[in-house]
Amino acid sequence: MPDTPPSVTLDDIHDAASRMAQHVHRTPVMSSRLVDEWLGCRAVFKCENLQRTGAFKFRGACNAVMSLTDAEATRGVVTHSSGNHGAALAEAARLRDIPAYVVMPSNAPSVKRQAVEGYGGRVTECAPTLEAREQTAARVIEETGATLIHPFDDLRIIAGQATAVVELCEEARQLDAIVCPVGGGGLASGTALATHFLSPDTEVLLGEPEAVDDACQSLMQGRLIPVGNTPTIADGLKTSLGEHTYPIIRDYVSRIVTVSDDEIIEAMRFIWTRMKLIIEPSSAVAVAAVRKDRDRLSSQQVGIIISGGNVDLDHLPWIKRPI
Amino acid sequence: MPDTPPSVTLDDIHDAASRMAQHVHRTPVMSSRLVDEWLGCRAVFKCENLQRTGAFKFRGACNAVMSLTDAEATRGVVTHSSGNHGAALAEAARLRDIPAYVVMPSNAPSVKRQAVEGYGGRVTECAPTLEAREQTAARVIEETGATLIHPFDDLRIIAGQATAVVELCEEARQLDAIVCPVGGGGLASGTALATHFLSPDTEVLLGEPEAVDDACQSLMQGRLIPVGNTPTIADGLKTSLGEHTYPIIRDYVSRIVTVSDDEIIEAMRFIWTRMKLIIEPSSAVAVAAVRKDRDRLSSQQVGIIISGGNVDLDHLPWIKRPI
Repeated sequence: MPDTPPSVTLDDIHDAASRMAQHVHRTPVMSSRLVDEWLGCRAVFKCENLQRTGAFKFRGACNAVMSLTDAEATRGVVTHSSGNHGAALAEAARLRDIPAYVVMPSNAPSVKRQAVEGYGGRVTECAPTLEAREQTAARVIEETGATLIHPFDDLRIIAGQATAVVELCEEARQLDAIVCPVGGGGLASGTALATHFLSPDTEVLLGEPEAVDDACQSLMQGRLIPVGNTPTIADGLKTSLGEHTYPIIRDYVSRIVTVSDDEIIEAMRFIWTRMKLIIEPSSAVAVAAVRKDRDRLSSQQVGIIISGGNVDLDHLPWIKRPI
Repeated sequence: MPDTPPSVTLDDIHDAASRMAQHVHRTPVMSSRLVDEWLGCRAVFKCENLQRTGAFKFRGACNAVMSLTDAEATRGVVTHSSGNHGAALAEAARLRDIPAYVVMPSNAPSVKRQAVEGYGGRVTECAPTLEAREQTAARVIEETGATLIHPFDDLRIIAGQATAVVELCEEARQLDAIVCPVGGGGLASGTALATHFLSPDTEVLLGEPEAVDDACQSLMQGRLIPVGNTPTIADGLKTSLGEHTYPIIRDYVSRIVTVSDDEIIEAMRFIWTRMKLIIEPSSAVAVAAVRKDRDRLSSQQVGIIISGGNVDLDHLPWIKRPI
């Protein structure tokens, strides 16, 4: 436990929940006997893959957009995330009827661009470098006065992501552990704080791909280690922790379990087969982590946050394609 | 409207619901703005793909198994359906701790056999002909005294399948139409009767593959036309109506919309992409039928029964495989 109070309070989380109440889907909490047998514990799944825009990201984006003053909102919002956060921000902005500017590298897959545009986002292309992204975002801000909404290292985003656990704790009491994946740490820090406030005896576990185990390394070394560049099937998690998310994770997470790409794909396919839910590789990381940690979690009551379901259905990792 | 009362009463359906209450999943009812835009109506989806064993079939099987006297139950149940009904019956029998004998043709895919055995069913193989199936089932009955549970042409099965609509009508009031797929007609007749009793102003529509449009032909010609042998991606629907299901469908269904395999695959992929739900081709038939009928259903409130989610994930219809 830290000496300083957490940067996001329970009030912040409750405010986020009321701010987004009319917009967010209250996603179902599901379970399966056969999955329990496979995992060796009693698991409940909070299905944020069934959230608007197909991922928990809509919660944070919605809280951030609905937190803006009218004057700020009129000028719009901007981000340089081309993944789930870009789509979520576009959808949240659409609901407030304000522009969302999404800066995307010119080599982004066309499906991602189409998703953002499908929710009404205005895409600005830039060269595929971090520098070009930031410069382009800065230019959009200068031209429009839009507010930058960071995909995870933002207290409004963290409070928004935390609301999934508020709902989970209302439906599943006495959880021994809550597990979610960690990338930049928006979901992980929100999950850790909400659990700390609402169910302090529940431990928080994170799943992380072995290939990009920077969060695990950061906890072990006691300082923020940036992510490397190794490829992983769970590419949505290839992100360093941030200044806000790192200390929360350091102070409120029990442990991080790393899993291989093979374990991720196995867990993904198992959930597709048994639960009929489309979960993306990042979500499967949390499931694979629970299975890997089954000796410690044996027979426990475990809540798993299924973070999203955005998958390219033409390229499933278990299907070999013609060359 | 017929002169004679329906063969399954509202009491039968309510009895089925209470009989299975502790066993059946109350599946979620979901909706999606983007799917509504695509369909041109306001659709709610009753997600029986998230039912135990991955299909609505568990409802009927559970009602049939739980209806048996203790003396009957001890001797077990038998069926010669190798698909979703076989798995559902095995699971229902497991819950009552009685044997389920499932007669399967020797050429049935091994995944189907594994599914039945995974739920504890005892598989008896037979030659891949209708005659061999029936003879083998008769032999099992003679040897064990087990009760034959037909996959659809059985009043307990029809009453069981009807309970999905009971739940749907509790959550989605004032539906203009309820739509489900039709194969042998267990779900279709249960849906038609429950709608007739609980929401008499709601019309019932069925979706059927063009390739096996025997139910549509039966309604048009006013007599039970058996199914032909044309292949369709929705092979779960390649079944003739039965003596019990045909008259109910004739009397209580408004119309049948037939759809092509291309339309079925398009609808299946759209729901996977947008709703993150794994639905099988038979379920996509109902969705495709709503889209095809969009001029008549325009802006209406439509309930769609998603019948199941059992799909071979190695062979998805939109992915070309190496030869």
